[in-house]
Amino acid sequence: YFSLITQEAEKHRHYEDENEWSCGSWLEYTVVVVLASVLLLGSLGLTLFWVFQYRGGFAWRENPAKQFNLHPVLMVAGFITFSGFSVLLYRICRCCRRIYVKLLHTVFHALAIPCVAIGFLAVLDSHNLAQPPIPNFYSLHSWIGLVTMGLFAIQFVVGFFSFLILLCCEGATAGFRSALVPIHASFGLTTFMLAIAASVSGLTEKALFSLPDTYSQWIEEGIVINALGVSLIALGILVSFAVRSPTLKAGSKVVWMA
Amino acid sequence: YFSLITQEAEKHRHYEDENEWSCGSWLEYTVVVVLASVLLLGSLGLTLFWVFQYRGGFAWRENPAKQFNLHPVLMVAGFITFSGFSVLLYRICRCCRRIYVKLLHTVFHALAIPCVAIGFLAVLDSHNLAQPPIPNFYSLHSWIGLVTMGLFAIQFVVGFFSFLILLCCEGATAGFRSALVPIHASFGLTTFMLAIAASVSGLTEKALFSLPDTYSQWIEEGIVINALGVSLIALGILVSFAVRSPTLKAGSKVVWMA
Repeated sequence: YFSLITQEAEKHRHYEDENEWSCGSWLEYTVVVVLASVLLLGSLGLTLFWVFQYRGGFAWRENPAKQFNLHPVLMVAGFITFSGFSVLLYRICRCCRRIYVKLLHTVFHALAIPCVAIGFLAVLDSHNLAQPPIPNFYSLHSWIGLVTMGLFAIQFVVGFFSFLILLCCEGATAGFRSALVPIHASFGLTTFMLAIAASVSGLTEKALFSLPDTYSQWIEEGIVINALGVSLIALGILVSFAVRSPTLKAGSKVVWMA
Repeated sequence: YFSLITQEAEKHRHYEDENEWSCGSWLEYTVVVVLASVLLLGSLGLTLFWVFQYRGGFAWRENPAKQFNLHPVLMVAGFITFSGFSVLLYRICRCCRRIYVKLLHTVFHALAIPCVAIGFLAVLDSHNLAQPPIPNFYSLHSWIGLVTMGLFAIQFVVGFFSFLILLCCEGATAGFRSALVPIHASFGLTTFMLAIAASVSGLTEKALFSLPDTYSQWIEEGIVINALGVSLIALGILVSFAVRSPTLKAGSKVVWMA
């Protein structure tokens, strides 16, 4: 009799869960996935549009001013678009096997590394090769950016080692790995937020350096820069919502166990 | 017999809970409370130091350039120090009655309102009374700031009405109020994060406007501005940690029910 009640309760709970996922939760899932994809790709597209439409496109060391343009594009690509999709994978992939999601998460972050590295080199070169050279690392933007890069590197190394290499002795490391998951997730979200703070301060710097007299006249380029900043901030709100949402989390609980 | 097992389990759980709170959790609690207080008061102190040491202190309409100085100080006081303590109250006050914590939360946010209002007036005046006048609302900083103020106002009105006025019919509104708590908490943290994004972009603007040639020479004032930005970002990380921490949340669960 007792077992019957339990079975009944189990069935009922299961039914409720499924029912929940057939209406509001699927709507939330769809809205988050579509909106996040639009914003992640849109902000990269807007950065490219800005750089090509108003800043003369790309160059390498022969033209330090244009070499600088690689910096915003590659940093947005690495820290926002690739990293953002990499984080959201754990919410988007509802049916894949956990190990595939993990590997994709690693691949997306690995793709971010060359972006960030070349983006960093581009701004160093554009400062050092300018006539006269521009000093490095004096601004709030550069300080935030350095901390973001450091945290990103630590997260990648610790994550790669703990969640992939340690799988070789799966049983013995299960406790350690599952204890590390919330820490890795928190620091990951922190890195994403720091990247957005770095972007916002960097966009403000660039607007004031490049449009000293015209930014305040509501010119087109200024509005494009502001719109880029606003969409990055919207992404920060949306990604932190998606990562914390109990609805989106519950369904993909299986992939959260490392 | 069944009831005996339950009691035993209950006692055991209770014992574990108490035990848990006597070591790591109290340490976490103390570190968060002390560090947050130092950073909340410290960032306001650093803003005051910056403004008085390097920017000539305060004035009203007779001197628009100095009237501007009220803007960073009052915005940090309202959006960071008062709002930060107001949010953290729910984690700091572990033994007070829920209604007292709620009232203190309201009082701290109410104290933030005149700060934000006068801080906003100060920047408008300092722009409009300058010779020649400086345009308003063209920069990314001003856009972020406007959104932050709007969200703050909505949160205050909705929170005041829902969590205090609706207490008049306590039973009938309990379900609505408890459903609103996580939404109010999420938007509250979002407002705090937006305030930090606004500060970081505002500090960058001010550094480039006021120190166009010397910011890159690592002068003292530039480092003070950067340190202020870094401590605000540290606050963003700490407050979001404190709000989400399961340890700090579990113990004060009672005050979270609205």
